[in-house]
Amino acid sequence: MTEQTIRFTRGIPAVESFTPDQLAECAKTVLTKYYETILQYAPSRGFQPLRQLLAERDGIDQQRVVLGQGSLELQDLLARVLLRPGQAVFVEAPSYDRTINILKRAGGQLTGFPIEPDGVNVDLVEAALKNDARPVLFYLIPDFQNPSGAVLSHIKRQRLIDLSREYNFWIVEDSPYRLLRYRGQPVPSMFELAPDRVLKMSSYSKLISPGLRVGYMVAPEAIAEQVAKWAEDTYINPSYLNQAIVYDYERRGWLEPHIDDLKSLYCPRLDAMLESLDRHMSGLAAWQKPEGGFFIGMTLNGDVRARDLLKRAEEANLLLTNGSSFFPNGGGDNFVRLPFCGLTPGEIEEGVARLASIVTTF
Amino acid sequence: MTEQTIRFTRGIPAVESFTPDQLAECAKTVLTKYYETILQYAPSRGFQPLRQLLAERDGIDQQRVVLGQGSLELQDLLARVLLRPGQAVFVEAPSYDRTINILKRAGGQLTGFPIEPDGVNVDLVEAALKNDARPVLFYLIPDFQNPSGAVLSHIKRQRLIDLSREYNFWIVEDSPYRLLRYRGQPVPSMFELAPDRVLKMSSYSKLISPGLRVGYMVAPEAIAEQVAKWAEDTYINPSYLNQAIVYDYERRGWLEPHIDDLKSLYCPRLDAMLESLDRHMSGLAAWQKPEGGFFIGMTLNGDVRARDLLKRAEEANLLLTNGSSFFPNGGGDNFVRLPFCGLTPGEIEEGVARLASIVTTF
Repeated sequence: MTEQTIRFTRGIPAVESFTPDQLAECAKTVLTKYYETILQYAPSRGFQPLRQLLAERDGIDQQRVVLGQGSLELQDLLARVLLRPGQAVFVEAPSYDRTINILKRAGGQLTGFPIEPDGVNVDLVEAALKNDARPVLFYLIPDFQNPSGAVLSHIKRQRLIDLSREYNFWIVEDSPYRLLRYRGQPVPSMFELAPDRVLKMSSYSKLISPGLRVGYMVAPEAIAEQVAKWAEDTYINPSYLNQAIVYDYERRGWLEPHIDDLKSLYCPRLDAMLESLDRHMSGLAAWQKPEGGFFIGMTLNGDVRARDLLKRAEEANLLLTNGSSFFPNGGGDNFVRLPFCGLTPGEIEEGVARLASIVTTF
Repeated sequence: MTEQTIRFTRGIPAVESFTPDQLAECAKTVLTKYYETILQYAPSRGFQPLRQLLAERDGIDQQRVVLGQGSLELQDLLARVLLRPGQAVFVEAPSYDRTINILKRAGGQLTGFPIEPDGVNVDLVEAALKNDARPVLFYLIPDFQNPSGAVLSHIKRQRLIDLSREYNFWIVEDSPYRLLRYRGQPVPSMFELAPDRVLKMSSYSKLISPGLRVGYMVAPEAIAEQVAKWAEDTYINPSYLNQAIVYDYERRGWLEPHIDDLKSLYCPRLDAMLESLDRHMSGLAAWQKPEGGFFIGMTLNGDVRARDLLKRAEEANLLLTNGSSFFPNGGGDNFVRLPFCGLTPGEIEEGVARLASIVTTF
């Protein structure tokens, strides 16, 4: 077969969204202005002006902000600081496969709670807590969840925060997609609702570039301190050059118009995905209809085994991620994550058409 | 007191050695040439052209090269891949304090072997092995060792390699200072002597800039594979921008003349330290006389307690590192690490004079 391979695999930004000339200009500026700091060893919390900018935006003390090499690594540091092997952790099911792995690697005993169109099923969470489950933390992606695309409703956010106070667990709010809302109104972030109970994580990977590896965490000061110490003991400090580039990009006022550009690029791709699904998958599956983010999560009707699905898709030059990897406690064989930002509308249409023709063979 | 504080603490490069304009030029070039790769998510082993360059230099397959965010983090990944809690690890005593911490954190049971003027005491190593010690690895800094400054002799390198074959342990050769030899002849690296038994680690932190966080490991392919997988599961990939900058710096032929500049800057500082020690510390201590690197390790005569020494030094505006932190099994109260690269000859003379006047109060 000579057809073009279509990759419904990883959630990567579109290469055409990158702004290398602007980044080179920022690099030049910060290497002139800050070279004595950014080329030397430095404190592990990260480049101070960027920490200050993020802290001011949230109205908090900058000691609560820790910058890292992408937010995933901060999750690893956090897991190693907060979790002891065997302790309970709550996550959504499905959830981000890499975080599931990190939490399990740290010895967490994970329980996944099903995702509904308005986010995780809080009744089941409450029942588990009443049934004596005692999680250390609940890892959530409330906005345009990876991999489902769901947005957690305001009322459910508040209920979860109330539960976190009653049962004394941390909420880890991972929000890399929050600013990529293509339509509709934002829901208050969990951090806004409870800055004392919520550890916020985010990054510039989806907004400027994943290759810069600039992520951040906002945590209560005692936890930020422990994470910073573990970070220092692991890598001394993250690359200040990259963090200074991001800071300069923000300082010049380039981020906001760039996010507008991203929305103009990605919204038609979301629409193409939704239209293609309507056209080809009606009656074959149920899917989320998100208003932003990178993904649409889909559940196929009927009996599908992930292994067979992936194999047949690959034969049709369509690459899929194994849906079960997003489920911490098994299942998910018939779950498909459809990323849409890194593909053109034409590729999306062709990919969904191929997927539909494969699914009908089951 | 209004005297200037003198920091005999961390081993940092001189700020005046940085070349920010050159680095900005490299950043501009790589952001033009490689932006599609370096701004995107990418394989965890790191920027391929730099891996290839390093592999060609060593005449090995590039799959054996893993680039990381500084070499310390690669040591952490390696420890998590190779070590199970409770397993034995050999190190030099003294050794690099951050690595000691990383190996202990991974559950390693560390045994330190004393450093002599020609490197670690191999007779004691052999005796321990004959006495049934079974280390997974031996972590060594053969060239201008941190913190002692010692260079391991050729004959001892070969004996250790023979022992590693007989008793089946890995040698981890950390060599960040190897190229900073200010006089005398280099000894073959352990990797050159046994590329199948030795895992080589190094970095550009002491050669270009620590702030770039570009380190690397050369390992047998199976270990490189496991480390790359653990790295991916931890931070997806390191920053390719920084690695591409380093690659471009090398490609332009800027590294070699820059290393010559470093030698011209640092050699007089080493000499200043050696002369100051002769002048002020004769009869009070014994010290290494290295021909390169960043440090001179010194052992004070008589009874000194590290805590008291640090306190009295601080009162004299002289900051020291706690010598005992370099010793994995205790001791080292009378050990002082003297870094000389980040200080001017004048600061070195003044610092040593202050140290001598403190030591005479014990």
